[in-house]
Amino acid sequence: MTGASNRQIVVAARPDGDARRSDFAFAEQPVPVPGAGEVLTRSLLISIDPYQRSLMGNAASELPPIALGQPMSGPVVAIVEQSRHPDFAVGDHVVAWSGWQQYGLSDGADLRRLDPDAAPLSTALGVLGHTGLTAWLGTTTFMDPRPGGTVVVTAAAGSVGSLAAQLAKRRGHRVVGIAGGADKVRSLTRDLGLDAAVDYKAADFAEQLAHALPDGLDGLLDNVGGAVFEALMPHVNHHAHIAIAGLIAQYGHPGAPPGPNRLPALLRLFLYRFVQIRGFAMPDHVASYPAFLADVAPLVAHGAITYSEEFVDGFDSIPDAFLRLYDRRNPNRGKLIARVG
Amino acid sequence: MTGASNRQIVVAARPDGDARRSDFAFAEQPVPVPGAGEVLTRSLLISIDPYQRSLMGNAASELPPIALGQPMSGPVVAIVEQSRHPDFAVGDHVVAWSGWQQYGLSDGADLRRLDPDAAPLSTALGVLGHTGLTAWLGTTTFMDPRPGGTVVVTAAAGSVGSLAAQLAKRRGHRVVGIAGGADKVRSLTRDLGLDAAVDYKAADFAEQLAHALPDGLDGLLDNVGGAVFEALMPHVNHHAHIAIAGLIAQYGHPGAPPGPNRLPALLRLFLYRFVQIRGFAMPDHVASYPAFLADVAPLVAHGAITYSEEFVDGFDSIPDAFLRLYDRRNPNRGKLIARVG
Repeated sequence: MTGASNRQIVVAARPDGDARRSDFAFAEQPVPVPGAGEVLTRSLLISIDPYQRSLMGNAASELPPIALGQPMSGPVVAIVEQSRHPDFAVGDHVVAWSGWQQYGLSDGADLRRLDPDAAPLSTALGVLGHTGLTAWLGTTTFMDPRPGGTVVVTAAAGSVGSLAAQLAKRRGHRVVGIAGGADKVRSLTRDLGLDAAVDYKAADFAEQLAHALPDGLDGLLDNVGGAVFEALMPHVNHHAHIAIAGLIAQYGHPGAPPGPNRLPALLRLFLYRFVQIRGFAMPDHVASYPAFLADVAPLVAHGAITYSEEFVDGFDSIPDAFLRLYDRRNPNRGKLIARVG
Repeated sequence: MTGASNRQIVVAARPDGDARRSDFAFAEQPVPVPGAGEVLTRSLLISIDPYQRSLMGNAASELPPIALGQPMSGPVVAIVEQSRHPDFAVGDHVVAWSGWQQYGLSDGADLRRLDPDAAPLSTALGVLGHTGLTAWLGTTTFMDPRPGGTVVVTAAAGSVGSLAAQLAKRRGHRVVGIAGGADKVRSLTRDLGLDAAVDYKAADFAEQLAHALPDGLDGLLDNVGGAVFEALMPHVNHHAHIAIAGLIAQYGHPGAPPGPNRLPALLRLFLYRFVQIRGFAMPDHVASYPAFLADVAPLVAHGAITYSEEFVDGFDSIPDAFLRLYDRRNPNRGKLIARVG
């Protein structure tokens, strides 16, 4: 490794609206040398997630933006190359939060050890990783609607949504998924076993929604926000529970869009329908990983959960793969992962 | 009483926007005769509340509107005139839900017996009645922010707000009240002991708010909605709890007002600040009356709670008194009650 370089994909510019290819740049740094208590990891699989747009700045986000010239942050499956930390040995597989670069340096706090024989390593970035934990928290804790009620999951073909929808089915709910495009929508009922699926890109979206929700919705796990959220509001039942896990339709759009102003209508849902909404984010709940894995890992091992992963090959493929997440013609389904190891 | 008539104030027309005098009419019916299991009550004190606008129809409400020609519904302190019900005797004082009429007929389900020696009868319509229960539920159950955090109460000079603000103070919060007009605002700090007060009618409302909330807000009990709610949004802290107890600024205004659309900004509060919002309404929680009274009645008896009541005299004065609640120049403070007995 001596003399090797650490290639990085850095935030080169602040996007105005959707991110563009020119907002990213490739950079090269020396491979870091671990000090006392530190671990050097080499990236094998790099996660590509919609929320990463929120880290690029000039966005409708309150997360601190990544400094220009610094690599995109995010989870990575990596192998320990050098260790001066008592808990990690060379050759260990870990999830690190080292982002879009070939090597990472860690004090161990962000590292979670993986057993490569227990499940495919890639699952540690999806169904058994941060998106899985988000889906599980949303379904079991932050939404948790009345038993037997109807649950709607948006972006239901995505990594969070597809697991959340299946977990809600397993809890005995009628589950309606929302996704974009006929292929994805078909897969929601065929592959995930949901009770109904609705295409938000269809011209008759509102009619499809009314047809799929004859008795309204009692729980909503929303990953989208914007117009899709607004279309769901008339269907929200009394005492419904709504959890906001993501806002992909809003990440590129700060400020307030043109009217009409739908905020008063949402306030009316609280007062007249006794609705509750909660938001949450996975990083606040990493302590729940063991409980989540104890619940979901056996289901995945026994094939009781359907998950899809899409791989792109090579470190250089990451920026274009990320931009595709925001392409309305995007056929991506499930968890997007770059194989770089 | 033979041959006596029961005067009523009925909903005569559906208001378009704010209610007008012509939306009410006086009517006269024979005094009803109680059947088996029924109670005839004679009204002594009639409650006049902002939310009653929501019962008039053509409103931004999801409550079923009162049929045209029927009396406005709402709570009343009454005396039992005739009883064919085992639990109520002639001469008993009760709270009935008989509305704006001189007599009421009940099967007993809505009646709550009062001890006229325990507290002034009028308190059963305010600080120890439905508005008090709303304030108590909001403060103790539906808002319940982090200990020691800053709480904002809107319409803090009103019947719900003034008790909620004092209960929040007693729970150790820093409490900021919002009201309209210099007199009301002064009374919030002087009479209720709040830590700060802000005038939403002032030209420099936004600046006053920023000054009163240097560390943001951790709890919000909102009775107003609309522009006041929107002005508070930038001050909402991470993990804040918001309870919606009323929307007086919105009752006359169905649909969606002109933009910009503030809904996406509210969704961002959930995702990035982990805020929760819940709505509630007192009628769902009448079973909590005993717990509420056990907590608050001793405080009222010992003078530890400041409450204000404004009386109007005579049955005929009710419609104009109600309309004054919606007059922006309204100097009304606290609970508005008509003496009719």
